[in-house]
Amino acid sequence: MDDSIKKRIIGSFATQSMMQTLGASLGEISPGLVRVQAPILPGLRQQQGFGHAGLTFTLGDTAAGYAALSLMAPEFDVLTAEIKINLLAPARGDLLIATGRVIKPGRRLMIVTAEVVARDGGTDTLIAILQGTMVPVPAG
Amino acid sequence: MDDSIKKRIIGSFATQSMMQTLGASLGEISPGLVRVQAPILPGLRQQQGFGHAGLTFTLGDTAAGYAALSLMAPEFDVLTAEIKINLLAPARGDLLIATGRVIKPGRRLMIVTAEVVARDGGTDTLIAILQGTMVPVPAG
Amino acid sequence: MDDSIKKRIIGSFATQSMMQTLGASLGEISPGLVRVQAPILPGLRQQQGFGHAGLTFTLGDTAAGYAALSLMAPEFDVLTAEIKINLLAPARGDLLIATGRVIKPGRRLMIVTAEVVARDGGTDTLIAILQGTMVPVPAG
Amino acid sequence: MDDSIKKRIIGSFATQSMMQTLGASLGEISPGLVRVQAPILPGLRQQQGFGHAGLTFTLGDTAAGYAALSLMAPEFDVLTAEIKINLLAPARGDLLIATGRVIKPGRRLMIVTAEVVARDGGTDTLIAILQGTMVPVPAG
Repeated sequence: MDDSIKKRIIGSFATQSMMQTLGASLGEISPGLVRVQAPILPGLRQQQGFGHAGLTFTLGDTAAGYAALSLMAPEFDVLTAEIKINLLAPARGDLLIATGRVIKPGRRLMIVTAEVVARDGGTDTLIAILQGTMVPVPAG
Repeated sequence: MDDSIKKRIIGSFATQSMMQTLGASLGEISPGLVRVQAPILPGLRQQQGFGHAGLTFTLGDTAAGYAALSLMAPEFDVLTAEIKINLLAPARGDLLIATGRVIKPGRRLMIVTAEVVARDGGTDTLIAILQGTMVPVPAG
Repeated sequence: MDDSIKKRIIGSFATQSMMQTLGASLGEISPGLVRVQAPILPGLRQQQGFGHAGLTFTLGDTAAGYAALSLMAPEFDVLTAEIKINLLAPARGDLLIATGRVIKPGRRLMIVTAEVVARDGGTDTLIAILQGTMVPVPAG
Repeated sequence: MDDSIKKRIIGSFATQSMMQTLGASLGEISPGLVRVQAPILPGLRQQQGFGHAGLTFTLGDTAAGYAALSLMAPEFDVLTAEIKINLLAPARGDLLIATGRVIKPGRRLMIVTAEVVARDGGTDTLIAILQGTMVPVPAG
């Protein structure tokens, strides 16, 4: 993989203040696959004490977006056009790990999926799947 | 509208630490319709400086969830089963306002929608629409 | 509304053999709003004798697609990029009527919704809502 | 796999008149995975002569529904609560093959996905992915 793409993703991630607020960090970056992980911080809970669906969504959406960016030419940035999440289990444990994948790249539309697992001790539980569309936009 | 339902929603909202992190507050609460609003805090931005899609999603999902809760018997709490968001415009301005609505209530499934507008000066721009399913679960 | 747009939609509809198979016909055509209706033919049922979800989907998707086409320049045709359906009630009755609407037009993406009602005697029941994205493509 | 489940699925499929209209047939039936295939009949085309999105949707939805049914107790039938389709390429070729999979079984909700490929000569092209929710209902 071109090292400049990895640098672009790392640089873009660093400019998203939301990622710092979530305590999120980048994991694996490969062509068409990116991982993003975060603990379930005390300030990101829902009414039952589990991680908020908005946290799970944001990690999945971000991983999917950077998976799309990993396959784009350098003059483009990426925006989410639409994405759907099915929540399978509560976000409970030490760490949430989102894996974004490009299913079909394209010049106008990139079709992506993501899955999010919650790591609790040594056990990973699939807590959400996402399916969406990313669009390339001219980089600012 | 039964005042105890309004109290339940206000109480549940207060226990979601995510809502404090987003600086979110409850607006109108009617049977089958709930509004949630938040400024676009500096820590909730994406790489271009706009509000993060995860912020827009979280407000829409929360408004839709409480719209569902507003029609549920007191022994139930609400969880998001699935929800889809189409993003229409950047989240830019002073305030995001999400309006959740119940399209079809049900004992097992509540079908909901939400729309999110960004208020910039005196102008409201529709920035996202959501469509999803909430499920009643026994209250903890 | 420009009469040539109405003609384009009527002409395009006539070339979709699927519409004949479903016994579907066009109703109202306005800028950004199109209706499509069909009876529930005996050959379009699911295992319990109701109209198949695929019938409901096809009518909703078609109405939404033509709503998008009604706002496009003549050199473009329309394709569905993605669409989501929530099914609310069985497709039962004399006629299904789908109403497609453009929520946000755009040169690259058109955000649309549709709702489908089942007319049974004098009563209309909302049986499905759809939310999706149409894309303009150069006309063949 | 319990042979009675296979029989239930084959029996249910036979009662869906829509499946005959589409010329569809069942392929592999395993616990949590079902395949459904159909040619692109002349009466199931869209305006450009490709298979209609409604055909692709119906095959994917049906495969996903029977994948869910393959994991249900015999006193239950299955209904689609919601499903989303992303269309990746035109439905062109000799045969469409939809593979439905259960991602997470549950007593109240079954989370499913499906993918649809178009076989053209010896080449399979992925033309659609679906993600949805099936619900068990008491069998009629």
